[in-house]
Amino acid sequence: MTNNTQPTIKKSIEHAHDNHEAYLNGFKELLSIPSISTDPSFKDEVGRAADWIVAEMERIGLKNCRAIPSGGHPVVYGEWLEAGDDKPTILVYAHYDVQPVDPLELWDSPPFEPTIRDGRIYARGAIDDKAGVYVNLKALESILTATGELPVNVKVFFEGEEESGSINMEPFVKQHKDLLKADLLILSDASHLEDQPMMITSVRGIVDGEVVVTGPRRDLHSGTFGGIVHNPIHHVAEIIASLHDEDEHIQVPGFYDDVRPLNPNQLEEQKRQEDVRRKVLEEQSGVRNFWGTSDYSLLERATAQPTCDVNGVYGGYQGPGGKTVIPARAGFKVSMRLVADQDPDDISRKFEAFMKGFEVDTLAIELTMHQGSWPTQLLAEGPEVEAVQEAFMATWGKQAMLYRSGGSVPIMALFQSELDLPIITFSMGTGDNGHSPNEYFVLEHFSRNIDLAIHAYHYLAEIK
Amino acid sequence: MTNNTQPTIKKSIEHAHDNHEAYLNGFKELLSIPSISTDPSFKDEVGRAADWIVAEMERIGLKNCRAIPSGGHPVVYGEWLEAGDDKPTILVYAHYDVQPVDPLELWDSPPFEPTIRDGRIYARGAIDDKAGVYVNLKALESILTATGELPVNVKVFFEGEEESGSINMEPFVKQHKDLLKADLLILSDASHLEDQPMMITSVRGIVDGEVVVTGPRRDLHSGTFGGIVHNPIHHVAEIIASLHDEDEHIQVPGFYDDVRPLNPNQLEEQKRQEDVRRKVLEEQSGVRNFWGTSDYSLLERATAQPTCDVNGVYGGYQGPGGKTVIPARAGFKVSMRLVADQDPDDISRKFEAFMKGFEVDTLAIELTMHQGSWPTQLLAEGPEVEAVQEAFMATWGKQAMLYRSGGSVPIMALFQSELDLPIITFSMGTGDNGHSPNEYFVLEHFSRNIDLAIHAYHYLAEIK
Repeated sequence: MTNNTQPTIKKSIEHAHDNHEAYLNGFKELLSIPSISTDPSFKDEVGRAADWIVAEMERIGLKNCRAIPSGGHPVVYGEWLEAGDDKPTILVYAHYDVQPVDPLELWDSPPFEPTIRDGRIYARGAIDDKAGVYVNLKALESILTATGELPVNVKVFFEGEEESGSINMEPFVKQHKDLLKADLLILSDASHLEDQPMMITSVRGIVDGEVVVTGPRRDLHSGTFGGIVHNPIHHVAEIIASLHDEDEHIQVPGFYDDVRPLNPNQLEEQKRQEDVRRKVLEEQSGVRNFWGTSDYSLLERATAQPTCDVNGVYGGYQGPGGKTVIPARAGFKVSMRLVADQDPDDISRKFEAFMKGFEVDTLAIELTMHQGSWPTQLLAEGPEVEAVQEAFMATWGKQAMLYRSGGSVPIMALFQSELDLPIITFSMGTGDNGHSPNEYFVLEHFSRNIDLAIHAYHYLAEIK
Repeated sequence: MTNNTQPTIKKSIEHAHDNHEAYLNGFKELLSIPSISTDPSFKDEVGRAADWIVAEMERIGLKNCRAIPSGGHPVVYGEWLEAGDDKPTILVYAHYDVQPVDPLELWDSPPFEPTIRDGRIYARGAIDDKAGVYVNLKALESILTATGELPVNVKVFFEGEEESGSINMEPFVKQHKDLLKADLLILSDASHLEDQPMMITSVRGIVDGEVVVTGPRRDLHSGTFGGIVHNPIHHVAEIIASLHDEDEHIQVPGFYDDVRPLNPNQLEEQKRQEDVRRKVLEEQSGVRNFWGTSDYSLLERATAQPTCDVNGVYGGYQGPGGKTVIPARAGFKVSMRLVADQDPDDISRKFEAFMKGFEVDTLAIELTMHQGSWPTQLLAEGPEVEAVQEAFMATWGKQAMLYRSGGSVPIMALFQSELDLPIITFSMGTGDNGHSPNEYFVLEHFSRNIDLAIHAYHYLAEIK
């Protein structure tokens, strides 16, 4: 399929390389805007980042470019729909907001002063996910400028509140179904390893909530009341300890009912990847002794089985030294990662029923569950995957590893349920520390991933 | 025994009543000094309170008065030893430091602006334990001024760091054994109920410590690592849940080995008090459904059985909303109240051995135990108790209820082990909220308890 597109790819890539310096400077400009979406005091900066991107999209020739109010931070939208009806329309998703920077003292250079050292660009957002925003735009700019057109129809959707829970995205997507209509969604919010490009084929769903156990109306003296007043911390501990059995199976009744086992091909794929991915997981975490039920392999537990983790626990005195109180309350935050075909609402209800079993006369239990999201299957085979793999071969010299992710991208389930879109995901960035200090993008891969996107848009154009 | 002492008691009490206004004003002065010992920024104020008391003791005629450095806050000491060798020497213990005041917004008047309303003086320290300091001094002043002498030899020991753990008192008492030599110790750090005077006959010992469970070197993403990294919160919960069995027996092996059962008289006494004290415990706590093992009565559990309470638990994210992490660490603070004849060092070792059973490959457990204190038996019968009960009859019109306290007063075990002193305890205050907002002393009882102390010093003089 590549013969008739090679000249335009070549011209586009030449343009990208000729403008490398300017492209890189633009990236630094975008990285300098502290678009932290979780902190209300950065609201104007998020808006400034949105405006910067809109201006950039207009400059490179996208149409109908604008920052659309969402109730929270704006969605940045732009399009180029002149490839013709016989060409697919691709909706490109990335997000331009970033995580907070604390602990600031662990950064070796200021998070919003992009700094190059040891072949890496260090800045908050460098990999998560301004890479997804900017590298995509540079690929589109290179093709448009070098050839005067794009090989596919493109709609760009850059979210501004991915890091703060996407809470306004459900109504937004529902209200803009026509605008967002497309044939394929490219999710560009992940990263490659330096020696191995990656493509995600599934993400887990998630349900989370909080349990608060209330006892006496104020903290009591444990000398006077020890032995006669039920300690909320003890009850919280019993509930948490009851979530798993001895072999770490989750004890919420019916929890596993809808878990779909991996098919033989998927199991084979996981077995092939186990060693490589174990090494990556070890490096990322520093953990050597992994944990979990003996029924499944490491990768199955990390990606194909559901989880139940307490993410926070609190109660009583937490300062230095001791304070002999029976606290008035204690509680914990819990989240469950879901796999196909678990329904987040169903799991929520089952968890709630399980908590009812812990009600006692001596304490009050209050449970709050948040809106969950479905597990999502992305494309793992077919012409779209083949087209993108061809782009990887052309630019990385090897195919991407297709892998199941243990994480959750709630907006993907939304795109799938509301817009019925097949999703393919590949990153525009190579790097790490997306939610940690010293986030970085590997400089050598800046050009390579622009080239990757240029190839991918051309190859996807050939499918329909 | 009272005949030959009645005239001097009468003169002393008349003096006290004639000077009621001045006495009360002096109390307000002392209450105005924010002698918070736990907060280093109040160090000068603690010193100012000590100096104020030293000056007051000198003024009323005590000898050898001084603030003795302790390494922490000073001990205030004074004496009057001219009663003769045939009279007992009484060491009077109280403390002049106070608890912090937060939450300040719950106080109806400023904690260091003593305010009289509804027949009560409200101020931090009014009951715990400037009452013990000041009412004692006014009783001594009344006797000395009215009669020119005291019926007993008196050594006054006012501590300045009771609320901050008395950490310098062990070396202090050991270094000042000669100075503190006496025949009887009066512990004046508790309070009476408005309609019932109280005397403590035992306090529990205490051992406390902290357990920290460490997992990955930093908080990990629960999407990527859920199902494969051992969550320290889960392990902390399992440990806490293992501390008690289903009927709330403590599961530390050997924990109950040295618990001495109550004798039939003590059991009978507890049975008699159960209803009255249950009501008080209900009022103080707001709790209606008490809790605990079914093997013992409410009062036995509260005072004659040991306890194990987790006073604080922490780990992971505690802010608003959720954050999907597997935390790097979690931990808890635990304290155990001990009864005769449990040895705090032995219990510490047993707890440590119990914790060893929770060691796993996937997490690290670190245990820190603090210096403990022995349970202490105070005088419950004999001539000293009879003398003080006679004083209660003379001033309150009824005898004090003798009761076991569930709390701990570590310095008492120290006085007992280092100075081999019999201890009798009765309060100089009537009130409540010692560690809470709106601490108060019942005004009517200010005079009554001065009278009580005047009687008690005279009656105790008759014993030896």
